[in-house]
Amino acid sequence: MIYFDNASTTKPNTNSLSIFEKASIDNFYNASSLYKAGVANKTMLDKYKQSILQALHASTQNNFVFTSGATEANNIIIRGVLRNKNAKLIFSCAEHSSIYNTAKELQNQGYNVVFIPITKSGIVDEAVFTKEVNDNTAFISIIHTNNETGAINDIKKLVTIAKAKNPKVIFHSDGVQAFGKIPVNIAHLNVDVYTISAHKVYGLKGIGGFYIKNNINLKPFIYGGGQQNNLRSGTENFAAISSFDYTVKDAVKNQSKNYNKVLDICNHFKSAIIKAIPNALLISDKNCSPYIVAISLPPVKSETLVYLLDEKGFLVGSGSACSSKSKNNRILSNMGYSADVVESSIRISFSKNNTKQEVDKLVTAILESVNEYKLKIKK
Amino acid sequence: MIYFDNASTTKPNTNSLSIFEKASIDNFYNASSLYKAGVANKTMLDKYKQSILQALHASTQNNFVFTSGATEANNIIIRGVLRNKNAKLIFSCAEHSSIYNTAKELQNQGYNVVFIPITKSGIVDEAVFTKEVNDNTAFISIIHTNNETGAINDIKKLVTIAKAKNPKVIFHSDGVQAFGKIPVNIAHLNVDVYTISAHKVYGLKGIGGFYIKNNINLKPFIYGGGQQNNLRSGTENFAAISSFDYTVKDAVKNQSKNYNKVLDICNHFKSAIIKAIPNALLISDKNCSPYIVAISLPPVKSETLVYLLDEKGFLVGSGSACSSKSKNNRILSNMGYSADVVESSIRISFSKNNTKQEVDKLVTAILESVNEYKLKIKK
Repeated sequence: MIYFDNASTTKPNTNSLSIFEKASIDNFYNASSLYKAGVANKTMLDKYKQSILQALHASTQNNFVFTSGATEANNIIIRGVLRNKNAKLIFSCAEHSSIYNTAKELQNQGYNVVFIPITKSGIVDEAVFTKEVNDNTAFISIIHTNNETGAINDIKKLVTIAKAKNPKVIFHSDGVQAFGKIPVNIAHLNVDVYTISAHKVYGLKGIGGFYIKNNINLKPFIYGGGQQNNLRSGTENFAAISSFDYTVKDAVKNQSKNYNKVLDICNHFKSAIIKAIPNALLISDKNCSPYIVAISLPPVKSETLVYLLDEKGFLVGSGSACSSKSKNNRILSNMGYSADVVESSIRISFSKNNTKQEVDKLVTAILESVNEYKLKIKK
Repeated sequence: MIYFDNASTTKPNTNSLSIFEKASIDNFYNASSLYKAGVANKTMLDKYKQSILQALHASTQNNFVFTSGATEANNIIIRGVLRNKNAKLIFSCAEHSSIYNTAKELQNQGYNVVFIPITKSGIVDEAVFTKEVNDNTAFISIIHTNNETGAINDIKKLVTIAKAKNPKVIFHSDGVQAFGKIPVNIAHLNVDVYTISAHKVYGLKGIGGFYIKNNINLKPFIYGGGQQNNLRSGTENFAAISSFDYTVKDAVKNQSKNYNKVLDICNHFKSAIIKAIPNALLISDKNCSPYIVAISLPPVKSETLVYLLDEKGFLVGSGSACSSKSKNNRILSNMGYSADVVESSIRISFSKNNTKQEVDKLVTAILESVNEYKLKIKK
C-alpha cells in the first residue's frame, strides 16, 4: 500500500514511539504527586513546555497547554474565551470542523458569530475580514493551512489588520496542517493562541496542544484536579508529552528539508496528473502548501475514486478524512466550486517519506481508475 | 523505591504497552477514512467497544465512549445531560474533583445543584439521598469507590432508591477506583452511565471512557468531526484504545485473584500499623476497598510524612494525588474529621504487585518517620 493521506494522519516515527514507551515505564509517576519522582516529572513537563515554546519561536514567558489533540485544544480555546453573547466572534468559513462546528453551535446558542467567506484560492477574503473586525470583536480564529486544500492564510497580515482595528482582540490560528510543514514562527505571526498536533507530523495520536500568550485568561473547559494551571484538568499524559516534545523538535529541525522534498514531489504530481488527465481540475493552486493537493476529476465521484485507488494499493483522502463521512464538502463549496466539482474531489497529501516513483504510480492508477469508471458508466 | 500510590496511577503492564506500540505502527490509519485500512480500524474499534461492554457485564446494545481519561469523560457526561437550570442535579460531596468542581461551577452558573453529605464511613448518607431525589431530579452522580478513602457506595441500592422515586433520572457512577478492583457488573448495578480509566489498573495514561445506555442522549461537549456518534469528536486514538481493550479485559480476568491478594496485604498493613503506632487513626474502615487505606498520624503533617517516607524510599499519597496541591481535604472534612486529623492524613494505595514484606518495611518506615518528626519538634 502506498500512503497519500498524510493530512489525515501520519505513520509515527520510531523515536516518537520509543520515547513514549520508555517514559511510560520509567516516568509512570503522577506528575501531581509530592514525592521526588512525581516532582521530577512535573519539572520535566515544564521543560518540555519551554522547549516546545522555543521550537515555535515563542517567548518562554508564555504558556503551552497539552491536550489530547487538536480537536480538544480548539474546543478549550473557543469555550475559554466566551464572555458575553454580544461580543463578536469571527471565524473563516474554511475552519477545521472542530472550530467550525463549535462556532455553529455557539451561533445556535445566540452568540454573535460571523463567518468570513473565502476566495477561489481557499483563503480568507481580506476585504470582508477587514470590514468585520471592530471594537466589539472579542475573538478571531483563522486556520493557518487549510486541511482540505492546503490554502495558506497570511496570518501575520490578518493579525496586523485585526490588532490595528482592535488591539484587545484575541487572535487564534489552527496550525495543525501548517506546523512542521511550512515555517511557523509565533513571534513573527503575532498570534495570541496557536494549535498544533503530533500525529500530523510523524508523532503519536492522542497528544497535541496550544500556545497561549500569558496575558490571556481562558475560562476552564474541563474541570477537575486543576492541572496545567487549571487550563486542562486530568492526570498529565507524561509519556505522550515526552514523545510530543521530540516530535515537535524533530518537525522543526527538518521542516525546511522536508518542505523542499515535498514541494518537488508535489510539483511533479501536479504536472504529471495534468499531462495524464488534461481536464483534471487542480483545486490547490501554487500558493497552497505542497503537502496537500485537492483535485477534482468529474464525473468520477470522490468515494468511488477512493475505493478504486484503494483496490490498486493507493490510499488517498476524500474531502477531510477527519470527518470523511460527511456528504458535502463545505470548504470547496465555499470556494465557489459547483456541486459536480465538489462531489468529484479527492485529497492527495504527502509526507517526507513519499517519492516521485510513488507519485508516478499514483498518477497511473488515477488514470486507470478514471478510465475504468468511464467504461463502467458506458455499460 | 517501593510504590504505595497506586490509586494515583499504576505502572503499566508490558502487554498494555506492547499492544499500543504495535497498533501505533500497524494500524496508524485514520479510523474515519474510507479505504479498507481505515475501515478495518473502525471495525476493530467497534469490536473493542463490544468487548469492553462485555467485560463490564453490560448489554452490547449499549454504548461505550472512548475519551482521553476519566476527567474528560466525567466532564462530557455532566455537560452532556444539562438541559434546564431548574432540574435538580445531585452529587455526593465526596465526588472526584472532575465531578465535584464541575458541579460547583454549575452551581455558580445558577443550576439547581445539591450535594449529598457522607457518613463517618465516607459513604453517601442514604436518608438524605432518599429525601432529595424527586420528580424534578434529572441527574445523579455518585462515586463508586472513593479515591481518597476507598469507601464503597452501594450503587445498586442507590439506583434502586432513585429509580423508584423517579424512573427518568439519569444515574452516573464514577467507577475509576472500583473497576478492576472490586466486582463491577453494569447489569447488576443498573447505572445509566459509568466511568472507567486505564491508568489506575495497569494501563496507559491518556485513555479511558464511559459506558452509556443507548436510550440516553448526551449533548456533545467536544465539537468536531463527529467521531464516536458525535459524543467525542477528534481522531480516534486507535493504539490507546487497542491497549485499553487489553487492560480492561486483563483487569476483569484478574479482579478476584488480585482482590484477595490485596485484601490480605491491606489487612496485614492495618494490623501492623496499629500494633506499631497504637494511636494511628485508620480512616478507611473494613467496608472500604482494600486497595486504599487512609490513615492519620497527628501531629505529623501529611506533606511532611510524605517527604520523610520519600527519603526512606516509600512513595505514598497525600490526600488525592490527582490534585495533591490543594490544601484542604474536602472528603475527610466531610466525613466529620477535625482539622488536625485531616491535616495529618496520608493515603496508602496498593497494587497487585505489592507484598507483605514491602508492607512490613513501610510500617517500620512510618514508625521511624513519626519518631523523627517528634524528635525534631522537641528540639
